[in-house]
Amino acid sequence: MPKLPRSTRGWILNRRPAPTLSPDDVTLTDLALPELQDGQVLIRNTHMAVLPSMLGLMRADTLDQRLGVHGPHNPHSAYMPYTLGDPMTGPALGEVLASRDDTLQPGDTVRHMLGWREHATAPANTVEHIQPKGLPPALFLGALGLNGLTAYAGLLQEGGLRTGDVVFVSAAGGSVGSLAGQIARLKGAARVIGSAGTSGKCDRLKAELGFDTAINYTAGDLTKQLHQTAPDGIDVYFDNVGGDHLHAAIECMRPHGRIVLCGMLSQYLSGGEGGLPVNASAAIGKSLRLTGFQVFEHLEGVPGFAEEMPMWIANHQITCPQTAFDGIDRAHEAFQALFHGHTTGQTLVRI
Amino acid sequence: MPKLPRSTRGWILNRRPAPTLSPDDVTLTDLALPELQDGQVLIRNTHMAVLPSMLGLMRADTLDQRLGVHGPHNPHSAYMPYTLGDPMTGPALGEVLASRDDTLQPGDTVRHMLGWREHATAPANTVEHIQPKGLPPALFLGALGLNGLTAYAGLLQEGGLRTGDVVFVSAAGGSVGSLAGQIARLKGAARVIGSAGTSGKCDRLKAELGFDTAINYTAGDLTKQLHQTAPDGIDVYFDNVGGDHLHAAIECMRPHGRIVLCGMLSQYLSGGEGGLPVNASAAIGKSLRLTGFQVFEHLEGVPGFAEEMPMWIANHQITCPQTAFDGIDRAHEAFQALFHGHTTGQTLVRI
Repeated sequence: MPKLPRSTRGWILNRRPAPTLSPDDVTLTDLALPELQDGQVLIRNTHMAVLPSMLGLMRADTLDQRLGVHGPHNPHSAYMPYTLGDPMTGPALGEVLASRDDTLQPGDTVRHMLGWREHATAPANTVEHIQPKGLPPALFLGALGLNGLTAYAGLLQEGGLRTGDVVFVSAAGGSVGSLAGQIARLKGAARVIGSAGTSGKCDRLKAELGFDTAINYTAGDLTKQLHQTAPDGIDVYFDNVGGDHLHAAIECMRPHGRIVLCGMLSQYLSGGEGGLPVNASAAIGKSLRLTGFQVFEHLEGVPGFAEEMPMWIANHQITCPQTAFDGIDRAHEAFQALFHGHTTGQTLVRI
Repeated sequence: MPKLPRSTRGWILNRRPAPTLSPDDVTLTDLALPELQDGQVLIRNTHMAVLPSMLGLMRADTLDQRLGVHGPHNPHSAYMPYTLGDPMTGPALGEVLASRDDTLQPGDTVRHMLGWREHATAPANTVEHIQPKGLPPALFLGALGLNGLTAYAGLLQEGGLRTGDVVFVSAAGGSVGSLAGQIARLKGAARVIGSAGTSGKCDRLKAELGFDTAINYTAGDLTKQLHQTAPDGIDVYFDNVGGDHLHAAIECMRPHGRIVLCGMLSQYLSGGEGGLPVNASAAIGKSLRLTGFQVFEHLEGVPGFAEEMPMWIANHQITCPQTAFDGIDRAHEAFQALFHGHTTGQTLVRI
């Protein structure tokens, strides 16, 4: 048995971002790796995901925080804020270096939640053995992971996509949005509209990701642009942004339109306060439905997803753009890039 | 046959309120009553309803107006703005004075949409013959009319009320809210919470309308008050207000809570712009559902409503508070009172 590392490097949360992350809020530091116990595995991480929602975990945007009282939380929610002084967590892929559990062997590829560090020690029953079958392993943190399931179940189950629907996806160049648009097309949408923040991204949406039209939301009034590109209205809006995007979509929805509230990039950035200027009169007047979507609530979508998504990828029916950063020391940079529109598709760190 | 009137008095819209109604926006004026044609009836109005949503009709709060473009509208919506220079319309009750149609006779009580005037000439097939069967006729503009059906179908169909639910109703002293709270109780809600703008109204909610607790939203932070009274959260929120009420409710909803967007009193007053500060991250985190409700979309609720509501009223299981103004010349005053919290229950004008 090769000599196992006794320490590793990982990112610690020092201070809660207020509201956005500043360099002093996190530190890359040395972490001790305790001796392996029965039932545990030691993993060398090869990839970690960065996700916008991690800003909320850093900030601990909880009801308790805002109100100073205890409120009802969703027991199924994965929304457990990071603890100050502890290493941060998140989806990661790695290789088993040593195992004291019969179910996993050294060399196995595993998916787990101890990202933001180079090595991790974890109970074997909290990690998932991945068999890539010729697909790039990193996809298991993206299109074949929670991002992919979010796009799939959000659009098909929560959004109730029907053949012939006009679909609008915000942050369409993002990890979830880029997949949602392509799934909409594969499932018979009449028209797929995306939004992004640069004309270059908009070009990619059309050229590489099969969007019919792309709106550069920095280029003019979003509601007017959306109206011009969808004069007869939108049936399904897959919302990754909130704020002005949600407002514009509500204005342009068709009667009985369905809005999947999936991500709130605008609210993450604003600090979570103030929220969204939703035109509720229009929501009433058009009998709209808005539903908050969390992938953990839709595990009934897994069988369909597990059947269709790998097939679509293998058949090149879905393109999975990726923005990769190399080295654990660049994890902070990768995370920041998410909020500055510098990434396309799945953003990850190769460790 | 008695001599029929050749003219009547009615309210004309001169100018669109911006954003609230000022006295010069409307005028009570003489209107000619054309000679009765075949198939028509002449009605002497006895009661007319005033509704907050009429402010939107006066203002013509349409998408077209706001954007200067044509947008998708709900074909089922009753939302047809008033025309400048024409008499305004709205739910009314009256007595048939003369009929040139076989289906209606002088003396019949009818419900129709030509309110805001003392007499009306209408095609017989656009008015509804009402048989009060011992119930006060005015209820057919309130609990036994669209207000009642809105409360009933909004709560039971759109809100999916279940036995044991904790229910919150805003504008709980209003025409729809006062009924929604009582229906919730009759249908097995564990707890019914209402909000109103004065402590006197809050006392009435508890003493007369069966609410378990009542929140005076002018007496302190609404979210904190709602939390204190529903520490374990709310299952169904029946929203007649929007704005800060909707925000507070979202904060205090239980996971999978259901919000029926029914009225937007706050938005009517603000001029419809800006909309609501909705905390969409909480809506996602708790997998909430928000649906815009219009009664015209829920006529499937009519049979249950027609069976249960008259029975509840006859059995004194539902109380129908009323604020009445006397005389067509006070219609403007009655309408204004809606927005100043001076009314409880159904507000109407006895003509």
